[in-house]
Amino acid sequence: MDAKKLIATYRKRGARIETRARVPLKTKKDFSLWYTPGVGAAARHLAEHPEDARAMSVKRNSVAVVSDGSAVLGLGDIGPYGALPVMEGKALIFKTMAGIDAWPIVLSTRDSDEIVRAVKAFAPAFGGINLEDIAAPKCFAVEERLAKELDIPVMHDDQHGTAIVVLAGLLNAAKAVKKDFKKLKVVISGAGAAGTASAKLLLAAGIEDIILLDRAGILYAGRARLNAHKKELAALTNPRRIRGGLAEAMAGADAFIGVSGKGLLASEHVASMAPRAIVFALANPEPEIMPEAARKAGAAVIATGRSDFPNQINNALVFPGVFRGALDKGVRAVTQEMKLRAARALAALVARPSAGNVIPDLLDPRVVKAVARAIY
Amino acid sequence: MDAKKLIATYRKRGARIETRARVPLKTKKDFSLWYTPGVGAAARHLAEHPEDARAMSVKRNSVAVVSDGSAVLGLGDIGPYGALPVMEGKALIFKTMAGIDAWPIVLSTRDSDEIVRAVKAFAPAFGGINLEDIAAPKCFAVEERLAKELDIPVMHDDQHGTAIVVLAGLLNAAKAVKKDFKKLKVVISGAGAAGTASAKLLLAAGIEDIILLDRAGILYAGRARLNAHKKELAALTNPRRIRGGLAEAMAGADAFIGVSGKGLLASEHVASMAPRAIVFALANPEPEIMPEAARKAGAAVIATGRSDFPNQINNALVFPGVFRGALDKGVRAVTQEMKLRAARALAALVARPSAGNVIPDLLDPRVVKAVARAIY
Repeated sequence: MDAKKLIATYRKRGARIETRARVPLKTKKDFSLWYTPGVGAAARHLAEHPEDARAMSVKRNSVAVVSDGSAVLGLGDIGPYGALPVMEGKALIFKTMAGIDAWPIVLSTRDSDEIVRAVKAFAPAFGGINLEDIAAPKCFAVEERLAKELDIPVMHDDQHGTAIVVLAGLLNAAKAVKKDFKKLKVVISGAGAAGTASAKLLLAAGIEDIILLDRAGILYAGRARLNAHKKELAALTNPRRIRGGLAEAMAGADAFIGVSGKGLLASEHVASMAPRAIVFALANPEPEIMPEAARKAGAAVIATGRSDFPNQINNALVFPGVFRGALDKGVRAVTQEMKLRAARALAALVARPSAGNVIPDLLDPRVVKAVARAIY
Repeated sequence: MDAKKLIATYRKRGARIETRARVPLKTKKDFSLWYTPGVGAAARHLAEHPEDARAMSVKRNSVAVVSDGSAVLGLGDIGPYGALPVMEGKALIFKTMAGIDAWPIVLSTRDSDEIVRAVKAFAPAFGGINLEDIAAPKCFAVEERLAKELDIPVMHDDQHGTAIVVLAGLLNAAKAVKKDFKKLKVVISGAGAAGTASAKLLLAAGIEDIILLDRAGILYAGRARLNAHKKELAALTNPRRIRGGLAEAMAGADAFIGVSGKGLLASEHVASMAPRAIVFALANPEPEIMPEAARKAGAAVIATGRSDFPNQINNALVFPGVFRGALDKGVRAVTQEMKLRAARALAALVARPSAGNVIPDLLDPRVVKAVARAIY
């Protein structure tokens, strides 16, 4: 569908989510029970027992999907109104796939301190905070501060949703090509939110040889003009101390994880990889290399973020289940252990991994439950 | 129902509102239309045309019901969790009565500047802001600043919802007792949010003789230790320059509007009023005087905020229609003219006002439409 038609369709629909009453309000008795004077007893009780808010209000099942619009899809810094359709789409997925009452909230500020302040201010009525499409490196500090200062789970999905689904896919891809997962030489193109979290989660899962690239090339300890975040990454990765660009990184690599941009990967890069190579070209909607080109260049397993190719590596496999589990178990933070378990649970849903089947289908009804069970 | 049973009922229900999908998400095609890649076209469009957010997103029909919990019902400053059941109840009413997608937001701050900052930060995805249960005098500055700085309607319901329904009731009460509305001598007990806005709206409707009382007694120009807000009120009201307390204010008064507290009004006060007296004892859930006592003391028209007596003067007659109208017409502010029209429209729904029938019933299906039509 072309853009004009899509916009007309969105306009015709108006909104993709709405609210719904869970109690009747038809009689005076309904009013006195669910509004005044009945609500007074609930108000008085929660004032004294705020810990019961989860049992007696929307807080029990609600998630705020929050963005400042600073890094929306592949579109960059397009502001709160640009971000709104994406947050609303996520709220739709939260409800349809996991029964979670998510509400889209887009912020009129892009300042870290202001974002933290605003989210903390409106957090009490929510059971969780899904941060979304916030630019790196700002997103790291914002998430870290909120996770520390709030007593509800906070997860920046671009980081951890992506990392979990990447790990799940890579676990199965290694099986499909019959390689030892922990021995994989992995190249990650993109050192933003997704690349950073993916690198850290792959390290936590036991992979030792990861090379990260940003726009300036390979990250290595001692590279000039690295910010604190990239310094940390450089220290954690690139054990062979390779320098250079994509060509140098890709030579002999077992797996490529692209969380960068359209068309960055050339056929020659893929051809230079180790045999039975794995290519996850996840840039959306245009991948780093088209599947057909990667296949011709010799890649054995190819995944993208798109629904029109096999192996769709999409965050929507993860975030509904993570928050479903977090809300059900009342966990206060999504830890690295939970993420590892979630990735393994997701991977395990594919009984016999093969080149064309490394990740469960987005419509597989087992996905949300399996991920949710891993959150405890 | 006693408090324990009520709390158990709320606990059993869990939440009184939830979200609902307005589009299907069952096939890959649904995903690519309503999520990725389709949502990209909507995101790009709204980044360039934020003015279309109302046509293409939840902003079209959503209201944030916002409180800091500083003045909840008659319970006072009971904080965000205490406020949450009330905000959720209002969201339920918004949906059931006016089809509005309202979401409860309670704030972890009670500081004016922080409230303004937080509401401005999360405002973009909402079509309107219903402020609620924010203490006076803070509520005046908060509302005024937000109304000025946001381009969506902002209304503090404790002020203007109350003022509109009080004016509507008083218009009909004057008819019922065959007195000239503008000539009414009116006493308002309570100079907080509701009392202040009611006084100003009654003045705008043409009433000249209003006496306001706070805890220290009658407001008059020159009274010691008045804050800026009460100085303004003192200058606008009490043209006969009466001093003293409730006894002095009530002698010869035609109408009493109680927005203060339980049992403040004695039978002798009512007995000292002019013939065919009007008594609106609106404190909730315990009125300033019980209807039976007021009747025995000679009052002709008696109204309360409760559903178990005749003449229920309740904000729920107003706020759903005001925001329904504001969203439908795209108005950016709720002006004094709109409030006057809304009150008159509400009053006009009572074909033949009488002592026992000065205000439409909360369940009257004409109410929301009539109020909404007045907002333009």
